[in-house]
Amino acid sequence: MLEPALLLLGIDIGGTKIGFSLGDETGKIQRRLRRATQPSGSAETDLRRLAEEARRLIGAAGAHPGELAAVGAAVPGPLDLDAGLVLNPPNLPGWDRAPVRDVLAEELGCPVFLENDANAAALAEWRFGAGRGFSHLVYLTMSTGVGGGLILDGRIHRGATAGAGEVGHMLVEWDGERCGCGLRGCLEAYIGGACWTRRLREVTPASSRVAVLAGGRENASPEQVVEAAREGDGFALAEMDRFNHYLAQALVNLTFALAPEVFVLGTIAVAAGDALCFAPVRERVAANTWPSLSRDLRIVPAALGDQLADYAGLSVAIDGLRGAV
Amino acid sequence: MLEPALLLLGIDIGGTKIGFSLGDETGKIQRRLRRATQPSGSAETDLRRLAEEARRLIGAAGAHPGELAAVGAAVPGPLDLDAGLVLNPPNLPGWDRAPVRDVLAEELGCPVFLENDANAAALAEWRFGAGRGFSHLVYLTMSTGVGGGLILDGRIHRGATAGAGEVGHMLVEWDGERCGCGLRGCLEAYIGGACWTRRLREVTPASSRVAVLAGGRENASPEQVVEAAREGDGFALAEMDRFNHYLAQALVNLTFALAPEVFVLGTIAVAAGDALCFAPVRERVAANTWPSLSRDLRIVPAALGDQLADYAGLSVAIDGLRGAV
Repeated sequence: MLEPALLLLGIDIGGTKIGFSLGDETGKIQRRLRRATQPSGSAETDLRRLAEEARRLIGAAGAHPGELAAVGAAVPGPLDLDAGLVLNPPNLPGWDRAPVRDVLAEELGCPVFLENDANAAALAEWRFGAGRGFSHLVYLTMSTGVGGGLILDGRIHRGATAGAGEVGHMLVEWDGERCGCGLRGCLEAYIGGACWTRRLREVTPASSRVAVLAGGRENASPEQVVEAAREGDGFALAEMDRFNHYLAQALVNLTFALAPEVFVLGTIAVAAGDALCFAPVRERVAANTWPSLSRDLRIVPAALGDQLADYAGLSVAIDGLRGAV
Repeated sequence: MLEPALLLLGIDIGGTKIGFSLGDETGKIQRRLRRATQPSGSAETDLRRLAEEARRLIGAAGAHPGELAAVGAAVPGPLDLDAGLVLNPPNLPGWDRAPVRDVLAEELGCPVFLENDANAAALAEWRFGAGRGFSHLVYLTMSTGVGGGLILDGRIHRGATAGAGEVGHMLVEWDGERCGCGLRGCLEAYIGGACWTRRLREVTPASSRVAVLAGGRENASPEQVVEAAREGDGFALAEMDRFNHYLAQALVNLTFALAPEVFVLGTIAVAAGDALCFAPVRERVAANTWPSLSRDLRIVPAALGDQLADYAGLSVAIDGLRGAV
């Protein structure tokens, strides 16, 4: 068990925003800060600036950097966990093979733990959100892309080369739609925001409520599909049905493979809500799995919303300390 | 670590055969026995007979039942692991809710560990077969049905209600072929022996080598497909291609979800061998995943062959003791 009131710092590094949260292992957050990412082109410069801001945040909380027990960093893109590197993250120029762990550890004088953003979000929902109390959780987030994180037997499952949880690229249609990753037929090619938006701008009927809400189909996005579906628009309802169909296929396959207790679904699913997404997805999963697997299975919305950035890095710090002791 | 030379008993309980193996945690087997299952209609009677035979085997090895450190039982069908029960296994009349753990523990005076047969096979291949030395292994066996077992981070992954690893029922075609489980479009409906045999008896051309080898298409089975494909028969090669297609789909999905280091494939895949199965499956998996996930991924045949029954129960005993200490 962790001692109470360890001082922990979470850093959530995204392509557009960076979030800092200073808190403890109970999820109590003392200070938070968010700012635009503004990469300088040099990861090392960016990281030393991050550390400087962290020290100021610690000082503003009336604490001393020496009291910091651990840092957890949620970072985009693939990682080399052994070496503590971020590998070519999208939207962070100069960050290929960025030595996040070592620079922050040197600057802040404490252990630094890294996790990719989807795994960090899974840890956050598991520890502080919709997945509290479960041992087997699958987290799926459907924003621009589709990411995932697996908590199995109460631990994050990273697999070989820390590449597990890439559920967005499960194959749902052979020779299907082209995905941003270069492959065809990935789940993300059907339900990821970027691919879905591209499709909507091609197929949305000019007369549909989606086009009206968007101010022309060339501006259509999943957001207006959700809104128009809520108003009963036929095209939007068919699009939600397509979304739910592919999402359910992935959940069926993950259920048979992993027998999770709970799926926590983020972003678009949360926006769509129960009637448009969760209820029909639950129904399809129940119809295409066995009662022994689906009877007690929960399929629930992510609970942290825009607090996710506060809890993601903090959860990585907690998990890292727990694994290290 | 286990002490050397613990006396362990493995029992492999199948619908047609029961195997006993007396050995130790290094995989050294001192005695083995196999016999037809012959269920009496009462699980308790059958279990007490099993225990009597086990005591005789121990005596024949010059040992005493009191020296037995653990029993591992590989059993068919779903389990209630908390209660130590087998739940309605196919082909074992009278075994619904059979108290395997408690009756054997009472009779043999040592801890008894249970595992379903696919998980036990995964443990056996991991500890003594093709999966030695890996931390993340997925085992798939394609005999009458399609079973699976997952070793993740060096531990069997059972999931909620011990239902994980049912990879044979991953959804590969919506509204597809009817599976023995009652659902449609399961992997097993395409590559499981029972479903494939049923199909072959409907679609095999009378002129194909498969029909000739089988003595009529009404007797056709996957065995003759493998043989005829090896001889270059066009129908048989197309059937193998279909098999490889669906098998690869499941492996792609499991790779993105779990990032295993190795897939160990049993039975039909082993019979088909490298040219007819492993090489084309590896190629499809590489083409439909990312290099970061597939570069070091092994897809290999199971190595234990008909020794699997000897090692399955023994591996369950070893794993149970390891988990208990």
